[in-house]
Amino acid sequence: MTRTEPAGTPLGDQFHLYDTTLRDGAQREGITYSVADKIAVAGLLDELGVGFIEGGWPGAMPKDTEFFARAAAGDLVLKHAVLVAFGSTRKAGVRAAEDPQVRALLDSRAPVVTLVAKSDVRHIERALRVDVAEACAMVEDTVSFLVGEGRRVFLDAEHFFDGYAHDPDTALRVLDAAGRGGADVVVLCDTNGGQLPLGLAETVREVAGRTGLRLGIHCQDDTSCAVANSIAAVQAGATHVQCTANGYGERAGNADLFAVTGNLVTKLGMDVLPTGGAAELTRVSHALAEIANIAPDTHQAYVGASAFAHKAGLHASAIKVDPLLYNHIDPALVGNDMRVLVTEMAGKASLELKGRELGVDLAGRPEALGSAVAKVKTLEASGWSFEAADASLELLLRREVAGAEGTSPDEPPFTLESYRVVLDHRADGEVIAEATVKVHVDGERVIATAEGNGPVNALDAALRKALLPHLSWLDSVELADYKVRILSNHAGTDAVTRVLIESSDGEREWTTVGVHENIVEASWLALCDALLHKSLRV
Amino acid sequence: MTRTEPAGTPLGDQFHLYDTTLRDGAQREGITYSVADKIAVAGLLDELGVGFIEGGWPGAMPKDTEFFARAAAGDLVLKHAVLVAFGSTRKAGVRAAEDPQVRALLDSRAPVVTLVAKSDVRHIERALRVDVAEACAMVEDTVSFLVGEGRRVFLDAEHFFDGYAHDPDTALRVLDAAGRGGADVVVLCDTNGGQLPLGLAETVREVAGRTGLRLGIHCQDDTSCAVANSIAAVQAGATHVQCTANGYGERAGNADLFAVTGNLVTKLGMDVLPTGGAAELTRVSHALAEIANIAPDTHQAYVGASAFAHKAGLHASAIKVDPLLYNHIDPALVGNDMRVLVTEMAGKASLELKGRELGVDLAGRPEALGSAVAKVKTLEASGWSFEAADASLELLLRREVAGAEGTSPDEPPFTLESYRVVLDHRADGEVIAEATVKVHVDGERVIATAEGNGPVNALDAALRKALLPHLSWLDSVELADYKVRILSNHAGTDAVTRVLIESSDGEREWTTVGVHENIVEASWLALCDALLHKSLRV
Repeated sequence: MTRTEPAGTPLGDQFHLYDTTLRDGAQREGITYSVADKIAVAGLLDELGVGFIEGGWPGAMPKDTEFFARAAAGDLVLKHAVLVAFGSTRKAGVRAAEDPQVRALLDSRAPVVTLVAKSDVRHIERALRVDVAEACAMVEDTVSFLVGEGRRVFLDAEHFFDGYAHDPDTALRVLDAAGRGGADVVVLCDTNGGQLPLGLAETVREVAGRTGLRLGIHCQDDTSCAVANSIAAVQAGATHVQCTANGYGERAGNADLFAVTGNLVTKLGMDVLPTGGAAELTRVSHALAEIANIAPDTHQAYVGASAFAHKAGLHASAIKVDPLLYNHIDPALVGNDMRVLVTEMAGKASLELKGRELGVDLAGRPEALGSAVAKVKTLEASGWSFEAADASLELLLRREVAGAEGTSPDEPPFTLESYRVVLDHRADGEVIAEATVKVHVDGERVIATAEGNGPVNALDAALRKALLPHLSWLDSVELADYKVRILSNHAGTDAVTRVLIESSDGEREWTTVGVHENIVEASWLALCDALLHKSLRV
Repeated sequence: MTRTEPAGTPLGDQFHLYDTTLRDGAQREGITYSVADKIAVAGLLDELGVGFIEGGWPGAMPKDTEFFARAAAGDLVLKHAVLVAFGSTRKAGVRAAEDPQVRALLDSRAPVVTLVAKSDVRHIERALRVDVAEACAMVEDTVSFLVGEGRRVFLDAEHFFDGYAHDPDTALRVLDAAGRGGADVVVLCDTNGGQLPLGLAETVREVAGRTGLRLGIHCQDDTSCAVANSIAAVQAGATHVQCTANGYGERAGNADLFAVTGNLVTKLGMDVLPTGGAAELTRVSHALAEIANIAPDTHQAYVGASAFAHKAGLHASAIKVDPLLYNHIDPALVGNDMRVLVTEMAGKASLELKGRELGVDLAGRPEALGSAVAKVKTLEASGWSFEAADASLELLLRREVAGAEGTSPDEPPFTLESYRVVLDHRADGEVIAEATVKVHVDGERVIATAEGNGPVNALDAALRKALLPHLSWLDSVELADYKVRILSNHAGTDAVTRVLIESSDGEREWTTVGVHENIVEASWLALCDALLHKSLRV
């Protein structure tokens, strides 16, 4: 696929890889993206090379409105992708230009708008409560208004497959209305997720023939066929596929972006990502799981930690001779690994590259590089994860370089003797957290006690109280974000807790990680890394 | 499908639903079935109405040998299913009757044997190191020997699709050898899991035409298409489908028995289970997850707790009118339920619907409904979230009904006086968590202290120690999953922590929520709700 610059996307327009994690994915129970999370998600999807990123529904959801405002203000700079605003057509009986929801789409300043419209006559009549003619007018008016305002418009035809099976004429009339209005793509949505691939492919082929419109596909996973349905639709002529990261979505979820892309690239030979993009699938999948605060599915196709894991026994020696006899693809194609232990950066080449990014030169230091790779693998096997904790990784790499070269490691700004945290739920109902730390700093032994609204907050407060008279730079450092993940039965041991701490000094943010079975100790480890990292830049 | 009694299965022979959880499913990392587990799994699969249960590989795995021995001794009585022993063909250059592995299959006394054989010329030459003629002789000899001994034989043609694509003649020769030997079904195995449905269906159709043999299908999920591939194969003529419970299996897993069956029954209208079987899908899926000690996938198609969950708001009123406009099937068909998720948009209609689902009738109680809506909104504004915590929501609704009607609320099983948690990071580096609770139960004041690997674990341990002598039902309650989310800058206040606790009593799972600025207190609140909810059902 050539990478030309047609209207709308810098990635080439022959095929659209379209991500809707930020809207449809966020429908999954338990996912609550902050605006900062949304910006991070979009950044990762753009790094991967997705063509279109649906950012949300401006006007309907305040956080989505803010996301588009911050993106337009320059907080999100995209290399590959184009941002898409999602919304509905004008209400019945109103002019598109005067519908506040439609105006909100314009105000979002997203260059592309995806409109959702009902295409099943039963939904039109029973849920929308208008006739088919008005439903079509709502589509055509809104599309042509937005096109007139310089937007590229896609139409999501909701419940299309059920609608088409029940009353094909109405379903096609809605698509045609979008086409007349100037929509570039009409997206056939299996909103209930009830389709199976052979039947779906037949419908897509038929609709392509009957409408002549450019078709997209949007599948839900209620028959466990969302990925298969998406691929079958492409084989039947769709050139625009809507997915979500790791299949996040309501009910059984959506088509998984990573499995769909893996299949398009490795099975159909379609070059739907920029060069190098496919090899980022595993890393980006795991980073997006981290942001969603959902444990990655170890058995996920292509990107799961176990996706290319083989049990010893029957095949072990044969695998050594020719791994491709036992793997459906070379795992490296999607950035994965054949071993049971999958590490995102534990390859020498990628760790060297990562080191360069972090300012630690490993290129001419094979010994340090080798021991760093071994160290990262060992830690990741026990639940650590560095993919979202660059600051901790930088500290690790610096230690390995110092260790390999016999130089002295970075001097920590303080050392801990001990800490104690006491949490009291008193008989009067009050809840109190109190921490005492004993630390050595500037050659002095300092003891400090402080209260906080929770154990980690109290510990942080006590540590600051102890250190601030000695380390004035500490004043600018704030705990900006704190994430906790319980890793159950990791590697057969008891559950461990992984804590990610994002710190900020007003100019810079950095993230550190700590892992321990005790959440407070895990937090302490991440906190210490955060301060050590800052001390290197004072 | 009629329920006649042909050779081999009491369930009718026109279509085979074949489960291999006990062999292929057990390949999943982390699953270790004891013999008792295997008997329990087989019993549940039989209750569901599966036609064939592959019990393992007698002779190769001691536990499998024991399983077949105990089954033959009467420890496993099957109503519907027939037990299948899995094994390989005779070794090269040996007579089938003299191969100890083949004898072990006979000794297992399983009425059906599934033999695995290589059908890809590259595997035959490089891994098996024999020529194609000998590979075919190994298949034909072993099949005909076992048939001569009164066994029914199926042949799993390993790596069939890759083999057929590479060298169709060899692949077909292996199938024909099995047919000549007297195999009833030749099973085309996508061992690498690399197939996509349209291509796979074409191959199945072609092979059916070229061989005239009865075909089965066995799919792995490496393209995330195992379920779709299995269904496509059936549509292309396969009449025997091999699956595993919840898709357990190595790498990305196998075709999920529950999704495959759900699709066959509700989409293709095939009566592949005895009457009432489909409505057991959800229960059996969860019970099998329990035995495997794997948390059920809440987003699993058909049987997941969220498979029919809808966010309230947008569609709630329309769902009330006609749920089938929004669900691909009636959830009751597979023994599942429609759930309405309560979110920030909670309105009266959706909370009333949710109450009905939870067994709390709010329909004729406008006052209770009004105060419940107000309460949920207030709590959600301060960081609570009930969409994944039905048990806490049920308790809230019951309290609101009691409050509005002046009746007494549910009696808690105990009351807290106070607790204290102490966390020590000692000077020797050891980290210790210790909790003391003072509670009132059965009119007594009880004090108990326990250690744990973290603060919540210690608190849970101390509480159990205090209560267990008084509340024997507590013994069955386990903390199955624990999730933590830090809500930073929620509603402009300080960060609060939201904890979700999933509890299980071996039969039922329920989820509760607690929110507090102190993570330990948040966990405590969720823990108390979990026990209160259980006490209502004791």
